[in-house]
Amino acid sequence: MIILGIDPGYGRLGCAVLKKESKQEELLDFFCIETNPKKTYYERILEITNKIEKTINEYKPDTLAIEKVYFTNNQKTALNVSEVKGVIIYLALKNGMEIHEYTPLEIKSAVCGYGKATKEQVKKMVALLLNVKEEIKNDDTIDAIAICLTCSAQKNIPK
Amino acid sequence: MIILGIDPGYGRLGCAVLKKESKQEELLDFFCIETNPKKTYYERILEITNKIEKTINEYKPDTLAIEKVYFTNNQKTALNVSEVKGVIIYLALKNGMEIHEYTPLEIKSAVCGYGKATKEQVKKMVALLLNVKEEIKNDDTIDAIAICLTCSAQKNIPK
Repeated sequence: MIILGIDPGYGRLGCAVLKKESKQEELLDFFCIETNPKKTYYERILEITNKIEKTINEYKPDTLAIEKVYFTNNQKTALNVSEVKGVIIYLALKNGMEIHEYTPLEIKSAVCGYGKATKEQVKKMVALLLNVKEEIKNDDTIDAIAICLTCSAQKNIPK
Repeated sequence: MIILGIDPGYGRLGCAVLKKESKQEELLDFFCIETNPKKTYYERILEITNKIEKTINEYKPDTLAIEKVYFTNNQKTALNVSEVKGVIIYLALKNGMEIHEYTPLEIKSAVCGYGKATKEQVKKMVALLLNVKEEIKNDDTIDAIAICLTCSAQKNIPK
């Protein structure tokens, strides 16, 4: 099972690829796509989706795990992030992938056992769970890895 | 110039294709995609986008004119409609199309000369402007045609 984890956004988008074999988890890739604010919104969408398409082609993930968009103070941002999320869902559907969506609460609960965990706590648990040596500094990337772990944990629970 | 006009939605999506040569406007196609509420949200997204892709391949529009999503009482609906809108924008970008977004106010102003026009007034003006003989009953389809007309009208104004 290969999970593509996405923390959606058009300014910064976190992406992680996690491979799971029996109970072994291996982080295949993780990065943050940061787009240039001087570019048009459409150029930024295209840049992000081209990179995600490339990642799908490279790792052939069978599952997309993506964070649900929630309302912040800026409603326009929420709508724009949803547009990006829509494109990623579409790419997943076109590639026959399963799709799972998680709220920030579900992600924090799965990774830290506590829905109100801080960013710092999530970061520490991600490093611990995956035995990552290097420090992952980017918050969006950490979130994307945490989303992969949430999906992976759910797959352990027999239905 | 061929304009693809879209009133986005996942339950019902209005679509129209308008051809413009010099000042002559010709309605090439118009329809409403209505998806089955018993299907999953993802199946509905895929059904809609497949049909839009087919329409793009058939008419080769050079311009997408799409309605902006605004906040209704139901925020979840606004987010889901934005996801569908995102996919359509992506398809337009992939096909090298220009993209224009319009608010309901801009559309009503362009078609009826009055931003608070009723659905009935928009319907009458659409029929009048395009000399459509048959009655177009579906509101989403009428909106999609009105979006095409808005884009077409803007292109008449020298910059």
